[in-house]
Amino acid sequence: MSETATRRRGGGGAARRAERTAVRFDCAGYITRKVPDLDYHPEEALAVIEANADTVLQEIGVVFSENPKALERWRDAGADVQGERVRIPKGLARKLCETAPGEFEQIARNPDRNVRIGGRNLVLAPVYGPPFVRDGHGGRRYATMEDFRTFVKLGYMSKWLHHSGGTVCEPTDIPVAERHLDMLMAHMTLSDKPFMGSVTDPSRAADSVAMADILFGGLNGRTAMTSLVNINSPLTFDATMMGALETYAEAMQACIVSPFIVGGAMAPVSTIGTLTQVLAEVMAGVAYSQLVKPGAPVIFGAFVTSIDMNSGAPTFGTPEAAQVTYGAGQLARRLGLPFRSAGGFTGSKLPDAQAGYESANSLNMGLLSGVNFMLHACGWLEGGLVASPEKFIMDADQLGTLHKLAGGAPHDEGAQAMDALREVGPGGHYLGCAHTQANYRDAFWRTEVLDYKPFETWDEEGGRDTMALATARLEKMIGDYVAPPLDAALAEELENFVARRRGELAES
Amino acid sequence: MSETATRRRGGGGAARRAERTAVRFDCAGYITRKVPDLDYHPEEALAVIEANADTVLQEIGVVFSENPKALERWRDAGADVQGERVRIPKGLARKLCETAPGEFEQIARNPDRNVRIGGRNLVLAPVYGPPFVRDGHGGRRYATMEDFRTFVKLGYMSKWLHHSGGTVCEPTDIPVAERHLDMLMAHMTLSDKPFMGSVTDPSRAADSVAMADILFGGLNGRTAMTSLVNINSPLTFDATMMGALETYAEAMQACIVSPFIVGGAMAPVSTIGTLTQVLAEVMAGVAYSQLVKPGAPVIFGAFVTSIDMNSGAPTFGTPEAAQVTYGAGQLARRLGLPFRSAGGFTGSKLPDAQAGYESANSLNMGLLSGVNFMLHACGWLEGGLVASPEKFIMDADQLGTLHKLAGGAPHDEGAQAMDALREVGPGGHYLGCAHTQANYRDAFWRTEVLDYKPFETWDEEGGRDTMALATARLEKMIGDYVAPPLDAALAEELENFVARRRGELAES
Repeated sequence: MSETATRRRGGGGAARRAERTAVRFDCAGYITRKVPDLDYHPEEALAVIEANADTVLQEIGVVFSENPKALERWRDAGADVQGERVRIPKGLARKLCETAPGEFEQIARNPDRNVRIGGRNLVLAPVYGPPFVRDGHGGRRYATMEDFRTFVKLGYMSKWLHHSGGTVCEPTDIPVAERHLDMLMAHMTLSDKPFMGSVTDPSRAADSVAMADILFGGLNGRTAMTSLVNINSPLTFDATMMGALETYAEAMQACIVSPFIVGGAMAPVSTIGTLTQVLAEVMAGVAYSQLVKPGAPVIFGAFVTSIDMNSGAPTFGTPEAAQVTYGAGQLARRLGLPFRSAGGFTGSKLPDAQAGYESANSLNMGLLSGVNFMLHACGWLEGGLVASPEKFIMDADQLGTLHKLAGGAPHDEGAQAMDALREVGPGGHYLGCAHTQANYRDAFWRTEVLDYKPFETWDEEGGRDTMALATARLEKMIGDYVAPPLDAALAEELENFVARRRGELAES
Repeated sequence: MSETATRRRGGGGAARRAERTAVRFDCAGYITRKVPDLDYHPEEALAVIEANADTVLQEIGVVFSENPKALERWRDAGADVQGERVRIPKGLARKLCETAPGEFEQIARNPDRNVRIGGRNLVLAPVYGPPFVRDGHGGRRYATMEDFRTFVKLGYMSKWLHHSGGTVCEPTDIPVAERHLDMLMAHMTLSDKPFMGSVTDPSRAADSVAMADILFGGLNGRTAMTSLVNINSPLTFDATMMGALETYAEAMQACIVSPFIVGGAMAPVSTIGTLTQVLAEVMAGVAYSQLVKPGAPVIFGAFVTSIDMNSGAPTFGTPEAAQVTYGAGQLARRLGLPFRSAGGFTGSKLPDAQAGYESANSLNMGLLSGVNFMLHACGWLEGGLVASPEKFIMDADQLGTLHKLAGGAPHDEGAQAMDALREVGPGGHYLGCAHTQANYRDAFWRTEVLDYKPFETWDEEGGRDTMALATARLEKMIGDYVAPPLDAALAEELENFVARRRGELAES
């Protein structure tokens, strides 16, 4: 599941110096669960949701706005289309979903980093979308392209992260029309993990596909991107997102079809009502992807938060979000689709205790709800408005616990440790026994951030809190970063593409 | 499940003033789970553990040290006793466990606070045992009786806490011989929730029973205390703890028979090996309680941490501790005994992000592993060396999420919300719809500590972290505290008992 890579800086004395100080960093493979999911909701409730979702699609229907081609596709498939409203006969959406694969591979520049999305697997990807950054040095400010590159570097170096993500923060210092080009270049050149494409315009999705085609020397039907297509909940599919989905599906690139729901605002205030809407929306979106291109890889998404009914603020790491996520996972499994949800969510402004509680609540629930693709697994702060490098490091460290938990516990003869029990006996001590000596290295997950030192040592070292520990690690990681090697001709071809597109976009 | 109590200060103008400012505080009933446990380990592994535990008891055996009466009881029951080593034939310990009840009631001074321990229930109790206190004002220092009283008051006022606990901190300013008297008086007079008795000497257990007998006007076979009896792992039962257990069992008072294990030190370095030892130890301890008094209430305990193999420090909120706890829960259910484990565990020195992550990991795991009695549910810091009032408040708030999660989600017609889906339709908004208006008040769990405000508001209010928010709540809670009324004659009788015992202890 894991491998070790040693990166070296280039050239002469610097190379030798670098070799002496080079950081070895491991990258774990994606998680394959060996433990059961938590089937939180009973069969009866799931059956009710499924029946009601079919009723919603048939009687209420969904809107595909400003998208005549989509309406035509739906009409041809047998839906009742009135204006932009698409009413889908019971059973049709589910039937159309059947051609979507239950599991698919997303390739990475480094083939060892390829991931399989679906089945018993869990792929972890970083935060997506924050317009702001908060760090220990600068406080809270608008995110820049330099911040973006920092997050991509951190993602590349994070052992327990399998995916480079997409818009790890919004590089607000780059014009919107060109942003996707710079973001893709960062993912393609600063990391060798898989990444996401642009969805903010169909033409940007097309640029994403073109650049991936260059990077991979021709995609040839392989899936190289998993991109985030949000549904405009309730029950509305806008032309921008659907345009991106159409572009990606036609190129056999994966999309996450994801309701974006603040409970009580964009969906009913009850868990079962919300799940009904989520299922109806996802089935309509996935079915549409299959109308565009049968067999296109697609993910059942569910971004669901609860709401503070006093202020209207979204809330994170709450039990209601967990109830919906567990249910969405059960529904996705019944539908046979890969499932995206959860993350290191928090509403806190700072990487403090609140951030820790809420993120851990959400990460643990994500593992047990059967998530296959977890966006926002690290770096998320302030309800997603802020990306934090220190929080990225804290969360990314915690992702190691999910790997260990998902692996289960062996019960072979070695794990049974009867020899150790016999050797030590009543009142003895296991630290020195043969079984411990043979097994201690891999027995326990090890943090690379948190503090376990005795109080006196910790106190002498400055009494640092988690934020201070993460700041120190952040500096070390960025100092140690070396880009993964990329073929020079390939890099040039990518640069030429970007330069050409920049020119075209400037003219238009 | 919950009720509201308004407490008033006594007498005249003060009373009227108090009435205007009186805090209403609710107390939730203990949790009754309506959702499944996580059966983390497969049947096959559990069967292996059970067979191996029987082998351990028969071939290796356990030690009952300095306890001739215990050895005699074991000999009479059919065990092979050599010196202090007790080898228990396969099947005997399990057979003896059968007379222990699967569920029992612990009574409280306020009958509305009675708890049922076992079955699908979860009773939450605060931190136990820290010699130090850390708070926002004084930093880290030795705990005092005043600190103890503060924690009892906080426990009394904490909505989601069902139990007042025991040694919420060690009152180091009181002589050891008298401490139990002051601690019991605090629980009995400052709270009306159920509590724990002393275990540090059989005579102190007897004092605990005597005081409970006064408080409840005669126990008459009712269980009024659940007390913590640690096993000296591996496989050793010392005379002090067993003396306390004997005293309590004879009086039909409940004990938690609990291995105290730092994995790799007091048990094998593997999950399955540790579980084998835990099961062997608990079966021996519970069996012994039934030899003392068949039918005495007793709890299957498991305090298990992992270890940092570099420093030897215990670690908390880790995946290995979760693996053991899930397994112990499964074994306890198979044995038909109430289960105690988990808590708001952390190794952090401060109530920071590390504390949040680790505590949330542990609390969520505790819920899903089927814990029936959760000691250390709030207030634990620095690996249990420190009790923190702010951490108490943060954890106690999070305990509300466990209540909501455990309750499951209804799927009746109201919860299905089909009317809301029809009313709102594509592109609409649920905030104003009839279903939301009718249900929003109880739809979402509400924090009383964490911050969800918009950034600007939060910033204007001082940009407080969770510690600062908890400090503010701590001051308010202690300011608002009013003791639950206690019959004056009863209070006097308790005081007389304590005074008499203090005199006797001073003489001895």
